[in-house]
Amino acid sequence: MNNEDLNSTDDSPTKGIDEVVHQRVRLGLLTILNGARRVEFRFLQESMALTAGNLSQHIRVLEEAGLVRVTKGVDGRRPRTWVSITHNGRTALHVEVASLKALIERVESAN
Amino acid sequence: MNNEDLNSTDDSPTKGIDEVVHQRVRLGLLTILNGARRVEFRFLQESMALTAGNLSQHIRVLEEAGLVRVTKGVDGRRPRTWVSITHNGRTALHVEVASLKALIERVESAN
Repeated sequence: MNNEDLNSTDDSPTKGIDEVVHQRVRLGLLTILNGARRVEFRFLQESMALTAGNLSQHIRVLEEAGLVRVTKGVDGRRPRTWVSITHNGRTALHVEVASLKALIERVESAN
Repeated sequence: MNNEDLNSTDDSPTKGIDEVVHQRVRLGLLTILNGARRVEFRFLQESMALTAGNLSQHIRVLEEAGLVRVTKGVDGRRPRTWVSITHNGRTALHVEVASLKALIERVESAN
């Protein structure tokens, strides 16, 4: 996000929306992760129909923002990567949901 | 949008979300435009706190997708640029809202 994307006025209907969370793939990932204790990398990849590279990139953005945590382990002899949402990740997702609700209300009240 | 971003499975919570509409700035623009017959470029710029260049870019994406229409005219001696949402633009915004509602429901039912 750069400065020119900041919302500085009250009239913006996307005030309070953070692109780290709002971006389509990352919003989907956080939504899936929010419903589970931890989720395997491969499951996320299949659920969102992403390449491993693309999923890794989005997970890195979320991890750097402190919204998800990545742990590596083995299941039998197979290496596994698990992803889980952090406390801050849940908070960020709920902030996003609150902003989206306000936007939806604005759209619907205009009809 | 590229192929690897397509949602091909039922489990994706962002199924039905189109990045042309979902992107934060463009979602804000469509929401503002949805509430009016036409809106002046400068008003959009101030409402969303964008540079003219950045706003032009997003409007071009929306225009190329057939979601907004741009008209130029004069108001007294000053040139004006007006933007309005098209019928397809309203439809696309309502599809987005329906997808967001489903996602919100999923987030909230996990709590």
